[in-house]
Amino acid sequence: MKRLSTAEAAFEADFAALLAARGGIETSVTEPVRAIIAEIRARGDTALIDYTARFDRLALTAETLRIAPEEIEAEAAKVPPELLDALRLAATRIESFHRAQMPQDLHYTDDAGLTLGLRWTALDAVGLYVPGGKAAYPSSVLMNALPARVAGVGRIAMCVPCPDGVLNPLVLAAAKISGVTEIYRVGGAQAVAALAYGTTTIPPVDRIVGPGNAYVAEAKRQVFGHVGIDSIAGPSEVVIVADGRNEPRLVALDLLAQAEHDELAQAVLITPDASFAGQVVAAVARELETLPRAAIAGRSWADHGAVILVRDLDEAATLANRLASEHLEVLLDNAEAFAARIRHAGAIFIGRWCPEAVGDYVGGPNHVLPTSRTARFASGLSVFDFLKRTTSIATGPDGLRRVGPAGVALAEAEGLNAHAMSIAARLALLNERSV
Amino acid sequence: MKRLSTAEAAFEADFAALLAARGGIETSVTEPVRAIIAEIRARGDTALIDYTARFDRLALTAETLRIAPEEIEAEAAKVPPELLDALRLAATRIESFHRAQMPQDLHYTDDAGLTLGLRWTALDAVGLYVPGGKAAYPSSVLMNALPARVAGVGRIAMCVPCPDGVLNPLVLAAAKISGVTEIYRVGGAQAVAALAYGTTTIPPVDRIVGPGNAYVAEAKRQVFGHVGIDSIAGPSEVVIVADGRNEPRLVALDLLAQAEHDELAQAVLITPDASFAGQVVAAVARELETLPRAAIAGRSWADHGAVILVRDLDEAATLANRLASEHLEVLLDNAEAFAARIRHAGAIFIGRWCPEAVGDYVGGPNHVLPTSRTARFASGLSVFDFLKRTTSIATGPDGLRRVGPAGVALAEAEGLNAHAMSIAARLALLNERSV
Repeated sequence: MKRLSTAEAAFEADFAALLAARGGIETSVTEPVRAIIAEIRARGDTALIDYTARFDRLALTAETLRIAPEEIEAEAAKVPPELLDALRLAATRIESFHRAQMPQDLHYTDDAGLTLGLRWTALDAVGLYVPGGKAAYPSSVLMNALPARVAGVGRIAMCVPCPDGVLNPLVLAAAKISGVTEIYRVGGAQAVAALAYGTTTIPPVDRIVGPGNAYVAEAKRQVFGHVGIDSIAGPSEVVIVADGRNEPRLVALDLLAQAEHDELAQAVLITPDASFAGQVVAAVARELETLPRAAIAGRSWADHGAVILVRDLDEAATLANRLASEHLEVLLDNAEAFAARIRHAGAIFIGRWCPEAVGDYVGGPNHVLPTSRTARFASGLSVFDFLKRTTSIATGPDGLRRVGPAGVALAEAEGLNAHAMSIAARLALLNERSV
Repeated sequence: MKRLSTAEAAFEADFAALLAARGGIETSVTEPVRAIIAEIRARGDTALIDYTARFDRLALTAETLRIAPEEIEAEAAKVPPELLDALRLAATRIESFHRAQMPQDLHYTDDAGLTLGLRWTALDAVGLYVPGGKAAYPSSVLMNALPARVAGVGRIAMCVPCPDGVLNPLVLAAAKISGVTEIYRVGGAQAVAALAYGTTTIPPVDRIVGPGNAYVAEAKRQVFGHVGIDSIAGPSEVVIVADGRNEPRLVALDLLAQAEHDELAQAVLITPDASFAGQVVAAVARELETLPRAAIAGRSWADHGAVILVRDLDEAATLANRLASEHLEVLLDNAEAFAARIRHAGAIFIGRWCPEAVGDYVGGPNHVLPTSRTARFASGLSVFDFLKRTTSIATGPDGLRRVGPAGVALAEAEGLNAHAMSIAARLALLNERSV
């Protein structure tokens, strides 16, 4: 864990090093992924079945690639009722917040007489990748599928690897609750390729979302352009701005909740109170003695954790904006006022009773958020990821007379004569007729 | 030019071939671009000056990389007044349509007592790439810069290559009108790298937009993730749905307006009237005899043009949706009703008096649009490209009591104990206090 202080001369250099350390992750799986995609495009289901046998030790046929509705029902029935209730509460809240995001169409006639429009329509079909094994999180299914359903997407096709054939009841229950329309028990780059290009069994989709390992991320990169993809997520991050009036153990748990995700995750405390900072660091060490995921969380805290001592909350706001963190907790009096000064963050958690974990599950806003300082230009997952815009221009003779001549002048200046003539010939026809 | 008819048995195969032909463009400039980006990151301005000397035959210094305000003024003053007026009309209309797009923030307290927010903020800084030479279109400057200005972006940094030092007055005038804040006379992958990573003279930006050649496109791909980019545009396309009540020459000019962009451009006519189709094809041939850009337009029409004969307008709507074209012209009676049935198109031009060229210059909606069938999932440039969302959750003890237990249950089910504890420890504290 690094300790920085804005009062020290070395601060700018230390802080710059902290920022630079969150750069892009290089992968060296380009070629194997290229080969897998080519195989799926060439041999479809057959290749998909071959890869699944090899990587997941699971023998499938074209008939069993898709998990049957009865199988989904049977697995979902294994989930304890209190967990199903928790999933349903989360789903209701996520759905409600995303419904509130739905944008309005535009359609108006302006003073030149042109009728301009902007219409939002849903994608026809999306693919949702869900990692298998330990990283198969039902909350991720809700967070990826529900915005698509709220947006109005007709087909939501999910792929989840099932090594050795083992199904995850909670993931299947989450898929059912979220309106996923079909589930395939395949994973890896081969699943991404199947979703992008289609096979006999899996019709192609228009956009692929959801987290995955390096192969999945590289496959999404390679199919991008043919279909849409979401952003490639880096390691998770939290910045916590806290004053000395917080319970140190609670802040330590919030830091560790981020650190336990991944050894590369980053948890940063910014505080004006040096004594409090020391208490939090001590509390982190104490919690690490008993935390089940202490190996991961400890590594993350040691390698990527940081405590930044600031002289005042103005400095804290400036640094939070420069860090442009995925998650920002504001554990202060007047937390709302502080949050209003933040321009760059994926999501903000406001107040001492609002740990980030609330947002991971039951807050309502999406937990798929921009990492690695990309909150400077990127946003969390939302209904906008499943909608696209079509603009329109309608005009009769009057509108064309008003704006056409300027169009002709600009087209000629750009040397695009057919452009100019397509307008000018209509204006000439109007002139003839009005003579 | 291909002729297809839905009445023929071969139609589905022919149409599938037409769709497949618009696949991605492969480039082989990955390695040279990687080298250029590495050089710019290592040597900054010095490398930028070296590349500009080599590629653009232009000797620059750190002082002359940026075009001085007086130079911009002097060049813009060379533009004829009627062209300046045309640019200003276009700018006013583009600005007005994009202002109408600006989204609303969300901020509400729900029935569980949590206050949820979604706040749109502008990017701090964007880079606008403008190609040099013949493809330096002032209309593109307006279409890329104005949405950024409307969104509230503070810095709009433009790079334009100036081979042999030649400046383009109309491009500089368009930049001035659109609120571009700084202009650098550099281009190619080196300009993209400088915008992404910054040099001593060019501060880094958060997102890079604008068209460019294969080197520029590849450079944008490579810096993606570190900064945002717009989509990589393929060749331009139009689909024109027209009945026999149109003037054949006007439709021919509309087809050629698309074809003259690029030998890879595609112009497609869909009509239920075989005789009219023949008249349009003849008119295209006639116009090609005198069109200044006949070499390009003729090649495009021969290689990529198509005329599709349909039995009725229902078929036309279905095919238009399958083509998911960048531009769609609807030259029909009841054109509005037909347009309402289109789910996939970048932009629609409605009515016999609304050629696509109106939208290239003075319509108001953006002319930077999704190509190569990506309108299935992508949208044209807009204020949304220059805004990002930060969500927020605020809660006090009551809200946490309502949603916290479900969060604890889900976190435990996912094996993320510190997540569960960060909520559970707060709930325990509340219980103690209320005893």
